[in-house]
Amino acid sequence: MKYSKFFGKTFSSLSSEIVIPSHKLLLKAGYIAESVAGRYYMLPLGMKVQNKMVSIIRNKMDQSGAMEMITPVLHPLELWSESGRDSATGFELTTITDRRGAVFALGGTAEEMFVDIVRRYNISYKDLPFNIYQFSTKFRDETRARGGLLRVREFLMKDAYAFTENEEQFTKLYQEMTEVYFDIYSSFGLKAKAVPAHNGFIGGDYCHEFVVDSQIGETKYLTTESSNYIAHEDVAKILIEDINSNDELLEIQEVEADRAKTIIAGSEFHNLPINLQIKNVVFKSTTLGLVLAVIRGDLDVNVTKLEQDILGLVEGDIEPLEDSEVIDLLGSYPGFISPVGIKECADSKGQKVTIVGDSSLRTIKNAYTGSNKKKVDLLNVNIDRDYTLDYEGDISLAVEGLKAQNGDVLKVNKGIEVGNIFQNALHYTSKMKGADFTNSEGKLAPLYMGCFGIGIGRTLAAVVEVHNDDNGIIWPKNIAPYQIHLVNIGEDEFAESLYNELLDAGYEVLWDDRDVRPGVKFTDCDLIGNPLRVVVSSRLKESNHFELKFRNSSDVEILSKKELLSKIQDFYAN
Amino acid sequence: MKYSKFFGKTFSSLSSEIVIPSHKLLLKAGYIAESVAGRYYMLPLGMKVQNKMVSIIRNKMDQSGAMEMITPVLHPLELWSESGRDSATGFELTTITDRRGAVFALGGTAEEMFVDIVRRYNISYKDLPFNIYQFSTKFRDETRARGGLLRVREFLMKDAYAFTENEEQFTKLYQEMTEVYFDIYSSFGLKAKAVPAHNGFIGGDYCHEFVVDSQIGETKYLTTESSNYIAHEDVAKILIEDINSNDELLEIQEVEADRAKTIIAGSEFHNLPINLQIKNVVFKSTTLGLVLAVIRGDLDVNVTKLEQDILGLVEGDIEPLEDSEVIDLLGSYPGFISPVGIKECADSKGQKVTIVGDSSLRTIKNAYTGSNKKKVDLLNVNIDRDYTLDYEGDISLAVEGLKAQNGDVLKVNKGIEVGNIFQNALHYTSKMKGADFTNSEGKLAPLYMGCFGIGIGRTLAAVVEVHNDDNGIIWPKNIAPYQIHLVNIGEDEFAESLYNELLDAGYEVLWDDRDVRPGVKFTDCDLIGNPLRVVVSSRLKESNHFELKFRNSSDVEILSKKELLSKIQDFYAN
Repeated sequence: MKYSKFFGKTFSSLSSEIVIPSHKLLLKAGYIAESVAGRYYMLPLGMKVQNKMVSIIRNKMDQSGAMEMITPVLHPLELWSESGRDSATGFELTTITDRRGAVFALGGTAEEMFVDIVRRYNISYKDLPFNIYQFSTKFRDETRARGGLLRVREFLMKDAYAFTENEEQFTKLYQEMTEVYFDIYSSFGLKAKAVPAHNGFIGGDYCHEFVVDSQIGETKYLTTESSNYIAHEDVAKILIEDINSNDELLEIQEVEADRAKTIIAGSEFHNLPINLQIKNVVFKSTTLGLVLAVIRGDLDVNVTKLEQDILGLVEGDIEPLEDSEVIDLLGSYPGFISPVGIKECADSKGQKVTIVGDSSLRTIKNAYTGSNKKKVDLLNVNIDRDYTLDYEGDISLAVEGLKAQNGDVLKVNKGIEVGNIFQNALHYTSKMKGADFTNSEGKLAPLYMGCFGIGIGRTLAAVVEVHNDDNGIIWPKNIAPYQIHLVNIGEDEFAESLYNELLDAGYEVLWDDRDVRPGVKFTDCDLIGNPLRVVVSSRLKESNHFELKFRNSSDVEILSKKELLSKIQDFYAN
Repeated sequence: MKYSKFFGKTFSSLSSEIVIPSHKLLLKAGYIAESVAGRYYMLPLGMKVQNKMVSIIRNKMDQSGAMEMITPVLHPLELWSESGRDSATGFELTTITDRRGAVFALGGTAEEMFVDIVRRYNISYKDLPFNIYQFSTKFRDETRARGGLLRVREFLMKDAYAFTENEEQFTKLYQEMTEVYFDIYSSFGLKAKAVPAHNGFIGGDYCHEFVVDSQIGETKYLTTESSNYIAHEDVAKILIEDINSNDELLEIQEVEADRAKTIIAGSEFHNLPINLQIKNVVFKSTTLGLVLAVIRGDLDVNVTKLEQDILGLVEGDIEPLEDSEVIDLLGSYPGFISPVGIKECADSKGQKVTIVGDSSLRTIKNAYTGSNKKKVDLLNVNIDRDYTLDYEGDISLAVEGLKAQNGDVLKVNKGIEVGNIFQNALHYTSKMKGADFTNSEGKLAPLYMGCFGIGIGRTLAAVVEVHNDDNGIIWPKNIAPYQIHLVNIGEDEFAESLYNELLDAGYEVLWDDRDVRPGVKFTDCDLIGNPLRVVVSSRLKESNHFELKFRNSSDVEILSKKELLSKIQDFYAN
């Protein structure tokens, strides 16, 4: 392709608000352009990369025995009602009504559609297992789009859905898909980690998020240095050590406490350790009314565990209470909330409050906390005697410096989520009628499911985050838009004959044939980031030589035609 | 792929209402499945065919110098307002509002999006011409879905948009794309014709529809036997021969006419030729009120010409008036409508009527027609003297038996519309701000555009319509889902070793390894329609032979392994 007629050339200036490397480089080099916030044009350069990624994923999925198909973009909303996901707020679902009044969802994932098509067949155990997948546009009505392709409202996703007889058959397939995923990311030049994560909106018992380490990533996961522990922040478990659970119970006391409202202020005022304090965090739920989360003072509340694991709510159902609401709705006082008597306080305001306590509360005796009255604290507060819980369990947040359950110290890592694999078990097939198969005993049983997703755009952005330098992108060779970037300094005809020779040899060549300064061509070449740069000039032509430079090196080689072709061939043969 | 684990197996029974061959065969063989009316799942078999078609189109587009990209699925509605297409009723546009209140169109085509991205660049004449295209899902909120993939509400389309300096540069590209299209259809085993057609909703001065002849097609086009004339019904022009335009004008007469309301009844009642009668057809327009179309009695009104060419309305703006409305709104009487005095009749009902007359009215003198009163006709009616027209032009419908303008007799043909190419000229770039380029004189000028579409699903259905027999589909070899369909009658291990050998040799093989009767396997094999069938059985194994059959022939060959592999290789090498 000649760059003079190429559509989507490099941009010389960008808004200074664009700071994330992949966002900046992909815009500047002409890979993508924004339509409106969170919706992107994939320009010819970006499309070439995306097509290569799709082709690699397709081949590896097919090799694993998976079969490609595709569902309509518009999903009948009835199907989402069957699974109960139509009312989930966490998924930013968009719906649309056609001229006949039929309502459709713009799907964020397609479990319901795949179950819908599968259940129309009389599936027998002889047909199982099978794994069907699609490449299709997914829609998320995100409140906040961010960072170019990193968080968008529309994106291309490879989503696979596995149908199996039972847990055993599924587990084998899950492990195979894990390996396929590692293989796929590795083809893109990415070192991805499989991090145990939270099933969230997708449903099921376990899942793994594939994460590429990056400081600009939104995923936080915990590891330990001295062991193999790895877990997403949403599911990481910490070691809760005993404080004084064998102490004698002392009598509860009410004391004046003219202090600021922080945990530290409480500890300093009473001159007592933070881990004997009781921390109270209040939320409002769209379905449950008020929720009081109670935890030991040195720990924090993990909202995902509280919301989804303990309360069984969907993502986004609860949000923190404002200070004014603590007074008006809860009948308490900010900084002086207490589980002791809180139900009565809320009752006086006509509100219901659900109390959820973390297991860490069992490790302390004679704790201290607020009293629901301004500037009054309670000392010697004890669980079961002074307050009771509606729910008790693990709602603690794992943070850097705490210990994992094996005793090793936890470290926080940040990364980009580039894929997910989920066990769904019977989550969909038990809710959606007729999603059964005939087992080897001739009886009907629900299909055992799982699903496997890769966000293509975000993965592409992750590649750029990992592979770039000050001058631009450095593409891994199997997904670069072009194999060779040809630059001529004058000598158009000589360049054209090399261009044609390279095309005839089967290479993908981008030839910058513009009549612009050499500096502009070199800058654009580095920015675009194809693996090889070949330069033709009058000086080189005199000696019948060519200049070759690898994008990931600063060395320049002057080669004869034969040497040049041989070097290029060697590079792409391996 | 082993058919035992294949998802989307053949269906043995289908609704008897499904009669169109491609609809029936694609459902029955497991290529497609309906989600809801007009929205289809593309199952693994269908997906393989579609992917091959996409790949062929992509290669041929790229070879022509076109560049692939892709726009978001949701088009900001503001862009459609710029071009004025947001209010067009003929296009069945669906809109959607996101949680921030932004309104988007689900695009039926993407001219606005492509202009939007192109105008952000400072395009110079040096960048031109270029042709950019995408494969993307298109949405049409059709009132009536029909015939499987033939008329749907969602479909994959390849749509290309060419940006050029001027008519001359565009015309060259238009001719090149015509050749590319012929080449593409020919790769699919289709003989397509390029039929001059109506630009309709797309806008511009001329276009061609690519049509594959088929009795189940919805496109009607006209040809002449003795010349190269070819034209879509919407644009075909007929020869209007003079009847008696040189006659002396006689005095207008009102006569009683106790007759039925048809044209024939009028002719018989007055004993006068049909071509001296004036035919009156009334429509209501959403924008213009009532419209009376007047034409010579032996001719019919072409609604597209009337609506779009003469009145400049969008497709679907006008619809026929009911008989009761002729009385209540027009103030006339069904069967006795007349252009004479019609404005006064409508006026008495508070309505406005626009009169459009066909040029054929100039070929007759002393014509006869109704009087707007029940059972009263007018004789010796003459244009200009007795009635006048608001618009005059060609609104005649070309039908079989009439003559083309060259005098040859017209024949009507039916076919499936599998693609379109359009000249848009400045239709979009004059309406959408900043869609300019800097010409060689340094001045801004609007880009000269055209667009080129192929509906993948409908083309796939057209292939099946053309290539099938009583037993199933007969795929052309380069788009068949699999190259070889392997059937074993017992002898699983022997079959598996051949299966692996064929896979290793690089062939795509579908092996029916199920434990079912041979008859079932053979029936399914013919239904699915891969080009080659290879059979393995105990009897054949004894002599170390294999059976080979081509899907498009009834001959069966018994071959040694070497002969078999050589035959297969020869078949796929050519």
